[in-house]
Amino acid sequence: MDCIFCEVAAHSVDSKIVYEDDSIMAFLDINPVSEGHTLIIPKKHYENIFDIENLALDKIVRAAKRLASAYKDAFNVNAVNLLNASGAAAQQSVSHFHLHLVPRQENDGLDFWFHGKGESKEALAKTLEKIRKFVKY
Amino acid sequence: MDCIFCEVAAHSVDSKIVYEDDSIMAFLDINPVSEGHTLIIPKKHYENIFDIENLALDKIVRAAKRLASAYKDAFNVNAVNLLNASGAAAQQSVSHFHLHLVPRQENDGLDFWFHGKGESKEALAKTLEKIRKFVKY
Repeated sequence: MDCIFCEVAAHSVDSKIVYEDDSIMAFLDINPVSEGHTLIIPKKHYENIFDIENLALDKIVRAAKRLASAYKDAFNVNAVNLLNASGAAAQQSVSHFHLHLVPRQENDGLDFWFHGKGESKEALAKTLEKIRKFVKY
Repeated sequence: MDCIFCEVAAHSVDSKIVYEDDSIMAFLDINPVSEGHTLIIPKKHYENIFDIENLALDKIVRAAKRLASAYKDAFNVNAVNLLNASGAAAQQSVSHFHLHLVPRQENDGLDFWFHGKGESKEALAKTLEKIRKFVKY
């Protein structure tokens, strides 16, 4: 194996596991941006959002919801960010799907958002045109 | 109604809808950080990850996956970020659950990640202890 998260999933490397079942695992990020910063992964190797199967995705996001509620109590927080990076240009570092769950505190100095610029209706309409033919119902 | 995303879901205000079905809607962010920046919401009002129902969450994340693939073709990108902010301290601006889908290009100048500091095994073990009793299997 040359995928570090496959090794985590297989218990081949030590990790701080906060949740595990037959198909997913949640463990503490070793480079946390806040206390309780957690990664949720499928045990099966999927690269990112483009190839992960729906059932694995459902399980991961449901686990994120449950852990978010648990972290409210564990860390006395009432806010979290969920973040996924899919693809190198999106700053994905490990090529095994992972969802970040980041507990947030008031004035914690983190900034997870970048305010975009207001866009004209005409420009948005052009963007919508580009998208439409590719969206399958 | 005093929730802007409930108004979007009800078609009471104009929006650029990229996908819609009986329970969810995806539309272009009017303050995009990149071309195609999309918000995916449940039509029913949930505040954030702490109260959204599982089935709505499944639908939203599955839509994110399908749209991500569509945007590969629409915008010739191979990377996206998914981001959710739940709670004011996590920089949630509109109190109606929404998942951001942000198409990314190489060297687009955006930065969606903040590198945390390496944490000691001892500190991580303490964090895990705090979490354990609150995680229900």
